[in-house]
Amino acid sequence: MTSTLGIAVIGAGRMGADHVRRIGRTVGGARVVAVADPDGDRAKEAVAGLDGVSAHSDAVAAVAAPGVDAVLVASPGPAHEEALLHALARELPVLCEKPLTPDPAGALRVLEAERRLGRRLVQVGFMRRFDAEYERLKELLDGGGIGRPLFLHCRHRNAASPSFFTSDMLISDSVVHEVDAARWLLGQEITAVTVLSPTPSAAAPEGLGDPRFVLLETSGGAIVDVEIFVNCGFGYQVQCEAVGESGSARIGDAQAMVVQSAGRWGGEIAQDFLTRFADAYDRQVRRWVAAAARGRIDGPDVWDGYAAAVVSEAGITAARSGVRTPVELVERPALYR
Amino acid sequence: MTSTLGIAVIGAGRMGADHVRRIGRTVGGARVVAVADPDGDRAKEAVAGLDGVSAHSDAVAAVAAPGVDAVLVASPGPAHEEALLHALARELPVLCEKPLTPDPAGALRVLEAERRLGRRLVQVGFMRRFDAEYERLKELLDGGGIGRPLFLHCRHRNAASPSFFTSDMLISDSVVHEVDAARWLLGQEITAVTVLSPTPSAAAPEGLGDPRFVLLETSGGAIVDVEIFVNCGFGYQVQCEAVGESGSARIGDAQAMVVQSAGRWGGEIAQDFLTRFADAYDRQVRRWVAAAARGRIDGPDVWDGYAAAVVSEAGITAARSGVRTPVELVERPALYR
Amino acid sequence: MTSTLGIAVIGAGRMGADHVRRIGRTVGGARVVAVADPDGDRAKEAVAGLDGVSAHSDAVAAVAAPGVDAVLVASPGPAHEEALLHALARELPVLCEKPLTPDPAGALRVLEAERRLGRRLVQVGFMRRFDAEYERLKELLDGGGIGRPLFLHCRHRNAASPSFFTSDMLISDSVVHEVDAARWLLGQEITAVTVLSPTPSAAAPEGLGDPRFVLLETSGGAIVDVEIFVNCGFGYQVQCEAVGESGSARIGDAQAMVVQSAGRWGGEIAQDFLTRFADAYDRQVRRWVAAAARGRIDGPDVWDGYAAAVVSEAGITAARSGVRTPVELVERPALYR
Amino acid sequence: MTSTLGIAVIGAGRMGADHVRRIGRTVGGARVVAVADPDGDRAKEAVAGLDGVSAHSDAVAAVAAPGVDAVLVASPGPAHEEALLHALARELPVLCEKPLTPDPAGALRVLEAERRLGRRLVQVGFMRRFDAEYERLKELLDGGGIGRPLFLHCRHRNAASPSFFTSDMLISDSVVHEVDAARWLLGQEITAVTVLSPTPSAAAPEGLGDPRFVLLETSGGAIVDVEIFVNCGFGYQVQCEAVGESGSARIGDAQAMVVQSAGRWGGEIAQDFLTRFADAYDRQVRRWVAAAARGRIDGPDVWDGYAAAVVSEAGITAARSGVRTPVELVERPALYR
Repeated sequence: MTSTLGIAVIGAGRMGADHVRRIGRTVGGARVVAVADPDGDRAKEAVAGLDGVSAHSDAVAAVAAPGVDAVLVASPGPAHEEALLHALARELPVLCEKPLTPDPAGALRVLEAERRLGRRLVQVGFMRRFDAEYERLKELLDGGGIGRPLFLHCRHRNAASPSFFTSDMLISDSVVHEVDAARWLLGQEITAVTVLSPTPSAAAPEGLGDPRFVLLETSGGAIVDVEIFVNCGFGYQVQCEAVGESGSARIGDAQAMVVQSAGRWGGEIAQDFLTRFADAYDRQVRRWVAAAARGRIDGPDVWDGYAAAVVSEAGITAARSGVRTPVELVERPALYR
Repeated sequence: MTSTLGIAVIGAGRMGADHVRRIGRTVGGARVVAVADPDGDRAKEAVAGLDGVSAHSDAVAAVAAPGVDAVLVASPGPAHEEALLHALARELPVLCEKPLTPDPAGALRVLEAERRLGRRLVQVGFMRRFDAEYERLKELLDGGGIGRPLFLHCRHRNAASPSFFTSDMLISDSVVHEVDAARWLLGQEITAVTVLSPTPSAAAPEGLGDPRFVLLETSGGAIVDVEIFVNCGFGYQVQCEAVGESGSARIGDAQAMVVQSAGRWGGEIAQDFLTRFADAYDRQVRRWVAAAARGRIDGPDVWDGYAAAVVSEAGITAARSGVRTPVELVERPALYR
Repeated sequence: MTSTLGIAVIGAGRMGADHVRRIGRTVGGARVVAVADPDGDRAKEAVAGLDGVSAHSDAVAAVAAPGVDAVLVASPGPAHEEALLHALARELPVLCEKPLTPDPAGALRVLEAERRLGRRLVQVGFMRRFDAEYERLKELLDGGGIGRPLFLHCRHRNAASPSFFTSDMLISDSVVHEVDAARWLLGQEITAVTVLSPTPSAAAPEGLGDPRFVLLETSGGAIVDVEIFVNCGFGYQVQCEAVGESGSARIGDAQAMVVQSAGRWGGEIAQDFLTRFADAYDRQVRRWVAAAARGRIDGPDVWDGYAAAVVSEAGITAARSGVRTPVELVERPALYR
Repeated sequence: MTSTLGIAVIGAGRMGADHVRRIGRTVGGARVVAVADPDGDRAKEAVAGLDGVSAHSDAVAAVAAPGVDAVLVASPGPAHEEALLHALARELPVLCEKPLTPDPAGALRVLEAERRLGRRLVQVGFMRRFDAEYERLKELLDGGGIGRPLFLHCRHRNAASPSFFTSDMLISDSVVHEVDAARWLLGQEITAVTVLSPTPSAAAPEGLGDPRFVLLETSGGAIVDVEIFVNCGFGYQVQCEAVGESGSARIGDAQAMVVQSAGRWGGEIAQDFLTRFADAYDRQVRRWVAAAARGRIDGPDVWDGYAAAVVSEAGITAARSGVRTPVELVERPALYR
């Protein structure tokens, strides 16, 4: 690579600031040239100490800033569509944090814009696809190492949920990661969702239906079950056991250091997703930078973002109604086959 | 203990013969005095080399044989009711292999007979309650070590199913163990059953709906999910993860010896339930013998056998219909509270 | 088996009383008929509630009591030789708790008595040979599963040492188990011992050289290293990793139940050798009873007891001197080949 | 960071080329500006496709090239001293792959040069200090989590040794990593070395004394034992168990994905140190770049390189003689305290 990719980062909150630091520290061949946040002070703070980076309160201005070769969207979901359409208008490669858009309708508009352009330029930030353990599991499944997959048993646990978390967000913000991971691992679409709601944990804030048990059926006749529990108390944990016709494989046990002390053996549990998936975030951005420099993407695309939005919506309906809810997708455009 | 408990073993098939050997070898304070099997030759074979044991082709005769202080029923399920009623008529303590009876109606008749007697004399052979790992899990849950239980995630796998196995038997013969274990671990009744059926494994015999995913709801608002897969190919495996409000606990990983060789680390998986639960069978019979010598039982009772039969029946209905099926029990008699 | 083996138990301390209970509860085909302890009250206490068992203050009387078919020696080491010689004089099968005798000279006298008799009647209670994990490791090594063994890395840890424990006993009471296990696993003799002494742990009682690191060289060119640490604080732990020319195998991790709670995953560590090796003790006695009924032994013999005594003595010398100490055995009699 | 650190890479073999790629891909704030290799073609190959990087056949020329702010030495050990002295003459920060120099005498000359300069500019590439698992172990030990350390039990295994490997290199190339890790983890110096040599594995090339068991004694009264086995056949494996006065901690088990199939459970073993320590290499260079930009080092220094050279030399002597060999260091200069 003979030149450096100039990146505009849209959104300077927790994720955006993290990406600015990441690009400065662990990504060769790229540098941040513009940062935008409606809170202009936050944008300035994120670029403090960095040379030659402009701060903006407007995403459109940042995308149009001089030297911008690619765009990283880390703003809140409702702001995604506008930033994506601007970047596509300029034919810039994009890495967009999930969700692509909060609802299927918006996702379809982005999909349509890209389809008209005739090139896939937007990558969605489902970073689990870049986690070393998920990659090994995918490789095993694709290689037929355990036969045709029959089940994915998934656990998704957070120590505690933030104050603004709602019952719907258990599906749209948390389980959406399993939705994408399942679609990717299996190479199948989700066809129906059922949600079981046990008596909520005493640790859950008033009114939050936590935990839940989400069942996804797939186009290939497999079953995906997800325990989502965002106030489990003991840490952040993502596990997945794939069961195939001739074997099973489990990731996420994370037994790095085993300590024996005071009558017990064991180890620590990570407390935070940025810790658990630190390497995945790094690898995602490095691979996206390498692809963007060639005008391509290297990861989940707009179709993946759209499908996730549809399944999320069906999941929220299923959780509210308590009954099995079918998932219906538009026909898949040729661009995404 | 100052004398030896004389036991009549009803049924000399695989389980019955195993019990005869067990009592001779690993159970102090007891000895087999009579063995019955409709196939008289099989009964004789089971007692060959044993001194002072009579062989019978009729269960009633064996129960009535001289020196019989207690009865161990290991005949096929449809033969249980008659043997149990005879033993109760003689007020003999009984250990009855599961199922208590094949259907709820028979179980209610046994329950009624015992209720009239006014004493609990029949113990049902749900031997998992005597497994060291299950005992530790029970102790942890009862002690509040992980808070109120929210989920039990269960795996129940066999390397291959016998030729006579049917789709119904996945529920009534296999999942029935999880039904009892869940009721015991949680101290709650099952209130509804849902069964999901993925596309059957290519390894399953024609017509067998294997694997299945069984969801049990409980009176305490917990969810129990069971992957039942009787042709998984790689071995016999029973795992259970309990998830509570403040932690989780998993049993069944069985990592006894770790071998590293040829680019891999790992170990063997048991191939057989008699291997996996050998100690549980031993402990069950030893504790039953000790209790029987005092005219008592020390394990699951007729109510447990009845409840398991009702849930099994509902599970079979749920599997056939594909919809959630409620479980309805008669009122629990005072004797079983 | 058509009759019941009558057993005299010599010694009614912790181990002896444990064996009395074991035979009553978990061993079919045998019963205790006599118990001896110099403290007659302790002998009486051990037989309380048992029918037809005589209590003695004299081992000789117990061995000669009516109905004695076999002898189980669980008295302190210095009392073993007398009991063994009496039992051999009566040609009774013996199970003798380790050590066979406290010193090589006594062991040679027992060996000579047995050699004159021309039959092996004495089995030494190295119960690890009956532990399921050790048995699997032995089977793996014998089957060539990891090639010719090069190393055994051993850990032997106690939560705390009893008040009477001495630095010599780290070798003669604790490491002696690894000495026998290594000889058995490898099928080789120990040829030299070196002992390294790190600065003692602050948790060790004044004057106790705890922990130590013991290096055994074998006749087959393998190295056995043993960390012996009898005040490790966190529990009782016996681990062994065998490293062969093409692989390694480790036992003793004992991860029965994995609990996640309060930011940690892990499990409990057994606190006591009677807990850790409960099944091994049971199996040892059951197999010895079955063999004794046929006038045989089924386990380590007097030669094994003698070799362990010689290595122990060399180990104590090595620990005191700090230098490598060769091990010299008498020629192995034909009876023990 | 407002400018980019220009790096000269000395040596374009496997390690050097790997570092050139690493800096281009995963290190922000730095770029390679010059590469030197006596084989000029190899230097040119390493810089192919990179813009503005000069290729040299002479290390001195590369160090003196325009834009060089720091030097990364990845040439063979005998070439290190010259490159280091040139870099020091120019007061450039250096990251030098281990060994600092092949012998203590050369290390002392570098130490003297740096001492005269009065600043620590040379960092030695013991990359294990940057491995996440080692870092957690170090943190645990420093925090007193398992009390004062008594033992480090180390395993260091390679699938197979390269053709040029010698018995001395088992110590100087392989165990030297444990020497540095032990000194760092314990914060103590090594005071003596003993080496035991089992009968070599049949898998070892003719004449290679593989495996060996190396015992290090430390200034704080701890014992470090290292199994070094460079033809173990099954993979690359680095494990370390620290045993303290109140607990133990083990790293290196690496159980990322657990697969069950064909009667076995388990996972893969890494085959290669660049795979096992990929993240450690990345993190080492990133942290060195950040430090070098401020004229500092952030890792093992010249004293660490010197001490490792002295222990290596003693270890080779100990392996040849078979006897315990003391380690003697010069007085530690104030600069390194």
